[in-house]
Amino acid sequence: MTDQQIAEPHPVEGGVTSARGFRATGVHAGFRKDPERRDLALVVADEPCACAAVFTQNVFCSAPVTVSREHLEGVGYGTARAVVVNSGNANAATGEPGLEAARETARIAGDAVGCPASEVLVASTGVIGVQLPLAPFGTGLPAAVSLLSAAGGADAARAIMTTDTCPKEAAATFSGDGVGYDGCTFTVGGMAKGSGMIMPNMATMISVLTTDAPVAPNVLHEALVRAVGRSFNKVTVDSDTSTNDSCFLFASGDAAPAGAGAFDPDGPAFARFEAALTSVCETLARMMAADGEGASRLVTVHLAGAANDADADLAARAVANSPLVKTAICGHDANWGRIAMAIGKSGASFRQEDASIDIMGLPVCRGGLAQTFDEDEALRRFEQPEIVIDVDLGAGEAETTVWTCDFTHEYITINGDYRS
Amino acid sequence: MTDQQIAEPHPVEGGVTSARGFRATGVHAGFRKDPERRDLALVVADEPCACAAVFTQNVFCSAPVTVSREHLEGVGYGTARAVVVNSGNANAATGEPGLEAARETARIAGDAVGCPASEVLVASTGVIGVQLPLAPFGTGLPAAVSLLSAAGGADAARAIMTTDTCPKEAAATFSGDGVGYDGCTFTVGGMAKGSGMIMPNMATMISVLTTDAPVAPNVLHEALVRAVGRSFNKVTVDSDTSTNDSCFLFASGDAAPAGAGAFDPDGPAFARFEAALTSVCETLARMMAADGEGASRLVTVHLAGAANDADADLAARAVANSPLVKTAICGHDANWGRIAMAIGKSGASFRQEDASIDIMGLPVCRGGLAQTFDEDEALRRFEQPEIVIDVDLGAGEAETTVWTCDFTHEYITINGDYRS
Repeated sequence: MTDQQIAEPHPVEGGVTSARGFRATGVHAGFRKDPERRDLALVVADEPCACAAVFTQNVFCSAPVTVSREHLEGVGYGTARAVVVNSGNANAATGEPGLEAARETARIAGDAVGCPASEVLVASTGVIGVQLPLAPFGTGLPAAVSLLSAAGGADAARAIMTTDTCPKEAAATFSGDGVGYDGCTFTVGGMAKGSGMIMPNMATMISVLTTDAPVAPNVLHEALVRAVGRSFNKVTVDSDTSTNDSCFLFASGDAAPAGAGAFDPDGPAFARFEAALTSVCETLARMMAADGEGASRLVTVHLAGAANDADADLAARAVANSPLVKTAICGHDANWGRIAMAIGKSGASFRQEDASIDIMGLPVCRGGLAQTFDEDEALRRFEQPEIVIDVDLGAGEAETTVWTCDFTHEYITINGDYRS
Repeated sequence: MTDQQIAEPHPVEGGVTSARGFRATGVHAGFRKDPERRDLALVVADEPCACAAVFTQNVFCSAPVTVSREHLEGVGYGTARAVVVNSGNANAATGEPGLEAARETARIAGDAVGCPASEVLVASTGVIGVQLPLAPFGTGLPAAVSLLSAAGGADAARAIMTTDTCPKEAAATFSGDGVGYDGCTFTVGGMAKGSGMIMPNMATMISVLTTDAPVAPNVLHEALVRAVGRSFNKVTVDSDTSTNDSCFLFASGDAAPAGAGAFDPDGPAFARFEAALTSVCETLARMMAADGEGASRLVTVHLAGAANDADADLAARAVANSPLVKTAICGHDANWGRIAMAIGKSGASFRQEDASIDIMGLPVCRGGLAQTFDEDEALRRFEQPEIVIDVDLGAGEAETTVWTCDFTHEYITINGDYRS
């Protein structure tokens, strides 16, 4: 392997229990009626370890978000031992009783795991506005503790699903060679759920990530904020933001030699860790976009030539959120006029005579003007599972990538017809 | 009538030729293949008169927007004689040839009407990225001039339609009694088109308004900006903004006595004029929202209790633009959790425990918590053609109203299936 290859993260099969020092499981506790369906996930670190988290900015944030924030001292990082996630009930818009239910969940889990409630983080996903029952935790959490396993990541990933059509897991390793941890292989792994930002009354994107790299809580938080900014925060299924979005990252340090210190946040080992973390988050983020409600296609919008990062983000999101762009992709229509409209209304600064657009590698607009292209070839390229749109504003050097999905009849059916 | 009644605008049947001093028509010129379909509208003032306009903010603005801006001296107001609107081709993303086509359109119209090209305004709606043919203007404009009539407003309103399912006209009168123009009745009338903000490649909301009140160009512009801000700018069908949006307002002064001066912009006659203008714009705006692509319901979002106007607008638009709210209405689902999610993510400042939500007059959320309500009664109320959502953030005194429509399978069909 070249030095460059050694420095890069390596995707591997796995999930939230791939990193050393973590066990997990997913069980049916009773939040859902179907006894075959797992609805309670538990991820536990062997020892209290560094933990960081980021949460929804929605004012209507759920009770578990509030309680998990409290348990991370209000700063988003600290020491923790476990995270409990239930599906089937979001515990959002539930007021003081909801907060008490979330706190009691942490107490029950702490008793079962054998740690203080303050070392337990909680997350919920499901119906909004309905009080969270505690009985399923009372029976489900002790049962889950007895089933915890280093091979339990897949069961946990299934237990956090709502209308997701498939579980979402990813993992990557990176080498410590040449960066002060020779012979060590570190792992970052995780699971996520999310399909619409909020479902037929269902709330949330939730992700739990783990690593066996040695990272201090405060820099773990910084790395997580940056990685989430380049991955989960770049996904938009329907422009809506859940009340329950939560992303947790635990770092056990178990793959480092005993007595080795934490990664220097300015050193090369930390850079490798952050690259691996970002790649895992990006893989999970793309899985979420591809599994968007009713989606038939993953859509990747690459926006270049922006005057600054904020403009790049504005323009890319305007394209990715436009119902007219998303329905055109559903209809296999290389309708670049709608993309031009979207960047034009975005607020990003550019001149139309400098803008270029490619759809699936076909130049469809140059200098703001229509280019003739082979419509049959465009239709063939729309058969691919991932549709790539490249936009260049011609206004600078900033660029970004945003992921979304197409907008189909199935989206309307899932979100509009479920009660009728 | 009470003084209050006298001061208020009175809705009347009519459109762009209801005010004195204007003639109009709509003809088939050949932009569309169907010879039965009118595709060229011409509105002409008997004499050059005060004119004001507002245009799209989209960077990808169309050529006619650029040329009309030039003809209004770049400030959005001045003196003009006529406006030409074609449907079937947006003349957007057409570069220098498109600008020349728009200028030539004004020259042909000026020759036919008998005025300088600089007194002609132009607007186009239709396919983006295709050069605008001039031949239909060469034959259609002289034909249109010969058909101009004070009863031609309805034909003009039909000629500017694209995927609109019905023409959109409105008019209102107001009295000059007691405000310096005793015995005078003034009229404001107009027409509009718009269904999606941008269509299967079709661009635009376009509106032409006229009045026989005497108003100077600069204050006419100020009144138009305010009225559009309270009406057309509060409509959102799909959160997308066209490349061609244009709204023109002509003031002939013909209903005032000969020699009477223009309305004092600080006086009561002007206030009555502005109220009438706003009511006509609001009526047309509601028609546009109700005729949104695939819409089965007009949706009115009334947002109160915001800390300031900007927050009111942010929160109201977040609700009106949310695909999840719009699909819930399509499904007759009083799903207030999605409304809570939308206001929560909007960026407006409030506390969830202060928020209240009513759907069709039913209290569904108080103090951020679910209220029990009669689901059967909610289903009955969803049968109404207009769905009203009332939100109170409990954070201040500012309020606003935004109009949209529901999100249906038909929207996906119109926008996603048209090429397949």
